[in-house]
Amino acid sequence: MNAIATELVLKAAELSNEVRRPLPGSRRVHVDHGNGLRVPMREIVLSPTRRRDGSLEANAPVTVYDTSGAYTDPDVKIDLLAGLPALRTGWINARCDSETLPGPSSNSGRQRAEDPNTAHLRFPQQRPPRRALAGANVSQMHYARHGIITPEMEFIAIRENARLAELRDSYQQAGYLRRMHAGQPFGARLPAEVTAEFVRAEVAAGRAIIPANLNHPELEPMIIGRNFRVKVNANIGNSAVTSSIAEEVEKMVWAARWGADTIMDLSTGKHIHETREWILRNSPLPVGTVPIYQALEKVGGKAEELSWEIFRDTLIEQAEQGVDYFTIHAGVRLPFIPMTADRLTGIVSRGGSIMAKWCLAHHRESFLYEHFEDICQIMKAYDVSFSLGDGLRPGSIADANDEAQFAELRTLGELTQIAWQHEVQVMIEGPGHVPMQLIAENMDEELRHCHEAPFYTLGPLTTDIAPGYDHITSAIGAAQIAWHGTAMLCYVTPKEHLGLPDKQDVRDGIITYKLAAHAADLAKGLPGAQVRDNALSKARFEFRWEDQFNLSLDPDKAREFHDQTLPQEGAKLAHFCSMCGPHFCSMKITQDVRDYAAKIGADEAEALDAGMAEKAAQFRAEGAEVYREA
Amino acid sequence: MNAIATELVLKAAELSNEVRRPLPGSRRVHVDHGNGLRVPMREIVLSPTRRRDGSLEANAPVTVYDTSGAYTDPDVKIDLLAGLPALRTGWINARCDSETLPGPSSNSGRQRAEDPNTAHLRFPQQRPPRRALAGANVSQMHYARHGIITPEMEFIAIRENARLAELRDSYQQAGYLRRMHAGQPFGARLPAEVTAEFVRAEVAAGRAIIPANLNHPELEPMIIGRNFRVKVNANIGNSAVTSSIAEEVEKMVWAARWGADTIMDLSTGKHIHETREWILRNSPLPVGTVPIYQALEKVGGKAEELSWEIFRDTLIEQAEQGVDYFTIHAGVRLPFIPMTADRLTGIVSRGGSIMAKWCLAHHRESFLYEHFEDICQIMKAYDVSFSLGDGLRPGSIADANDEAQFAELRTLGELTQIAWQHEVQVMIEGPGHVPMQLIAENMDEELRHCHEAPFYTLGPLTTDIAPGYDHITSAIGAAQIAWHGTAMLCYVTPKEHLGLPDKQDVRDGIITYKLAAHAADLAKGLPGAQVRDNALSKARFEFRWEDQFNLSLDPDKAREFHDQTLPQEGAKLAHFCSMCGPHFCSMKITQDVRDYAAKIGADEAEALDAGMAEKAAQFRAEGAEVYREA
Repeated sequence: MNAIATELVLKAAELSNEVRRPLPGSRRVHVDHGNGLRVPMREIVLSPTRRRDGSLEANAPVTVYDTSGAYTDPDVKIDLLAGLPALRTGWINARCDSETLPGPSSNSGRQRAEDPNTAHLRFPQQRPPRRALAGANVSQMHYARHGIITPEMEFIAIRENARLAELRDSYQQAGYLRRMHAGQPFGARLPAEVTAEFVRAEVAAGRAIIPANLNHPELEPMIIGRNFRVKVNANIGNSAVTSSIAEEVEKMVWAARWGADTIMDLSTGKHIHETREWILRNSPLPVGTVPIYQALEKVGGKAEELSWEIFRDTLIEQAEQGVDYFTIHAGVRLPFIPMTADRLTGIVSRGGSIMAKWCLAHHRESFLYEHFEDICQIMKAYDVSFSLGDGLRPGSIADANDEAQFAELRTLGELTQIAWQHEVQVMIEGPGHVPMQLIAENMDEELRHCHEAPFYTLGPLTTDIAPGYDHITSAIGAAQIAWHGTAMLCYVTPKEHLGLPDKQDVRDGIITYKLAAHAADLAKGLPGAQVRDNALSKARFEFRWEDQFNLSLDPDKAREFHDQTLPQEGAKLAHFCSMCGPHFCSMKITQDVRDYAAKIGADEAEALDAGMAEKAAQFRAEGAEVYREA
Repeated sequence: MNAIATELVLKAAELSNEVRRPLPGSRRVHVDHGNGLRVPMREIVLSPTRRRDGSLEANAPVTVYDTSGAYTDPDVKIDLLAGLPALRTGWINARCDSETLPGPSSNSGRQRAEDPNTAHLRFPQQRPPRRALAGANVSQMHYARHGIITPEMEFIAIRENARLAELRDSYQQAGYLRRMHAGQPFGARLPAEVTAEFVRAEVAAGRAIIPANLNHPELEPMIIGRNFRVKVNANIGNSAVTSSIAEEVEKMVWAARWGADTIMDLSTGKHIHETREWILRNSPLPVGTVPIYQALEKVGGKAEELSWEIFRDTLIEQAEQGVDYFTIHAGVRLPFIPMTADRLTGIVSRGGSIMAKWCLAHHRESFLYEHFEDICQIMKAYDVSFSLGDGLRPGSIADANDEAQFAELRTLGELTQIAWQHEVQVMIEGPGHVPMQLIAENMDEELRHCHEAPFYTLGPLTTDIAPGYDHITSAIGAAQIAWHGTAMLCYVTPKEHLGLPDKQDVRDGIITYKLAAHAADLAKGLPGAQVRDNALSKARFEFRWEDQFNLSLDPDKAREFHDQTLPQEGAKLAHFCSMCGPHFCSMKITQDVRDYAAKIGADEAEALDAGMAEKAAQFRAEGAEVYREA
């Protein structure tokens, strides 16, 4: 390794303290299931409630789903040059249906491995790729359909439950189960407790996918399906204009920290292959890509020069690196392209426009559509999941729910059935830009035509008039479509339509989508979803400021905002904030009401309930309370 | 005026350039209706489209509803020491049903006018108050019920239409009317064109209110009702902890600039009276208050010392200053208070908790409830509208839609009917914190029990777990409840639950709520609402960056985000942005597809539509287009 190389690698090998320190008040814990199956979670430790008599009452810690990987675990030594431990290798080996190859089997994989010009950028630990034995299918769907519960499924079942059954009593005692509202699931069937068998059955039915490539053993398994928690994807990736490998790795860790469930590496600039390798080796999250971007780079950006052979080689190259799902725009069929001619904003999907250009240039059906079964063969040899791209999604409110969009959606449904014949996992990408009154139709059409394959939508944005705030215009649509059944939401950052998101935008986008996904979980009635809301509201009501910060999706931001007006440490013990000042805090006044009621006492509550103040008076001396003691 | 006074007044008299310069690309225009009735609007001027042959095609300017007042009009000289011109004085005088009083008729109004300690803070131009002649009712509802169309109603009709009928042809030609989606209005009846008679009828029916106090002649009339545009309220006001008069005036102008339709002055700190006077004299927006806050200040913060006499005097004091609507928590009845005892977060409304404390302390029914008809007498003498406060609104997801909340709502319905007997205008305040699946019930219950009086909700927040992002958790709920029929949304800023919003938070809160309100207008099918979306999307598709910025709700933010990665002026003419770089811009590729299609030509669209590539080939030579020319 020469000097430049060393410098670059070392730069890439550094993570800022900002992305590594544990989340405040939290510790990474593991649920041990034996056989090395340890499922990570995050436990938020809370301070006690101070009762009126001065005694302290403990508040049960709250366990939450954790996406942050080993990065927030101070006990784990992180070495970006070595990558994360390969958690799943033992499980994969034990299945005895795959083999280690001598080296990359794609042409471009071999070229990149040997290219002296990029040697200095290459991830140092090159692990030879694995592939299914000839004729074998290593997809989670294949196992599921054959009745096999994989360790990935076991892991997911434990992870989804977040110890709810185990902690129910302590939650009950702490008041976190107060008034858990029934959901309106719109046909979703959310079990009281997720079992590994339930996971298996959902994957077998195609209603959920587990993106988990053989060659990405570092990932912590997760599931995407409408009968599970709503998930969030964060797009990262450099472009020709900006960003470096080190920045992208940092962005991935950052995305995991804030709660992204998967990331997509949408790099379109230089060194796509090398960037992806660094990300994959260090990512606890499944990674998705849009392989046509790299294929296009290989033909110098000229869409019409794309071919099946180049695309196929790219799929194998990326599958052998470990990409967990591929966005493939096989639904952009030649006859649908003219349907976009009258649109206000034409074709706005990058992949869609590339394929449209190709189809027109060659006057023939897309090679993605024609070679769809060949693609399935590759997918099942590595267990790469399809994310069937919506290349004709609307790019504006005007173009929502049009003929082009739904023609493509029906085609994605046909392709889903072909993929399922191959026992390859599928999710379906959705829009985009849709006004609220047209959102439900998107979900309904998807369920109908795509046979309940998981839906994965970008927003949708519910208006076009707020660039700079499109994380919000789209969160409104995202919460709504997720409530109706979308399984995973692709985030939108404040920079959408305007520029490449920086780290701060990534955080804003993820938190915005986490809260939208959580709002949908609540609305669907996901068991236990309300625990965190209740625990936080209780902390808020009791002026436990630190607990309120720590239970929030972004403790740093909550604290920063609080401290802008009341930075003194003492203010975090104060029974007020700067919004209303000490005399007008309604929560304080409510506490005063309780205190007052306790003083004047008697079985007043009942009497008051009857509206009889006179009657209340006669109970004055006896000493009961209007408010229950905290 | 002593030296300190002069300095303070001068400080208050300065507005930063930031709040005064016209919005980029915009000019304030007026629709002249004769008789001095000039209705202000904002016209966004756009650049032409460059066609493929190099020729230019003009893009019609877009007219939008404008709340910013004279502050964005470079032709108007602003003098904060004199206040805004009294637009409505002539209209009010012409009605001959009110009189100028010799001075304030409230005790505290008189005291404040004479207090030497606050002389230096006092607004310099003291105009004597007006009041209805004895026995007269000066409310817009009174006129409406007597078949009178007031200039305020004329003004509003013109304002709501934003010149849609007049500009329809130019919009049509520019493509802004493309694919206008039908709405789902959930029972709202949005007319194709708002007439003054329609405004009158809606006010007469109680389905809409026009907050417009006799003593606030400076305001530009606006309407709140579900058959009109969804409106947004911004809360400002100092607290005991922070903020000055000058800051609050600046905040009001700032709020108007970003699109607030009304403001509430929630000051609870020192000099409430003086702050309010400065705001009112300079506010083109209706101003709401919560009079109990000031009443409480008068009794040193001791809720139990409040009395009807003190409250009554405060109402008159504020009515004579010109407050347009009062939040009054008359629905917090004694028997409902015990219903909150089991709540996770008790009573979170400040007004609600004050009244609850009073009721418990006195063991009797609230004086607001008992004196409700006396309050109506005051309201109709100045035309102050009721905003019936939801003092028992839920403060957490757990407490949503509970017995206490709905008991109060039903009481608000009873009070509405009493107010209407007095021909006093009423809107109803709503929550708060509500998970998505329980939002529709709030709207349905409100319509049923409050007889279609306009609903005015705070959010609602759809989850409790994202402090620091509660503008977003609540925008999700706000868009949804506005779609279902809420007439005005009270904004929530990012600082909610954490601290007092600063100027930046106010802007974030307003833009977030403007986009939520607009998303609801689109979903309801408000005629013409989609024009701005379409014009912006067209600009986006044609890489008219400046137009995209200028059509957005926050042009400054859009430009700032764009410029973070591509600051050069040339980039605003570029056909790409930093997000994807020049080779991967899908919009550019779509344009290429159109160009390509134009080159290869023939009546290909039709042939492709039939899916017959062979057949397409035979048309190659003839020269038609797949895409319509821009």
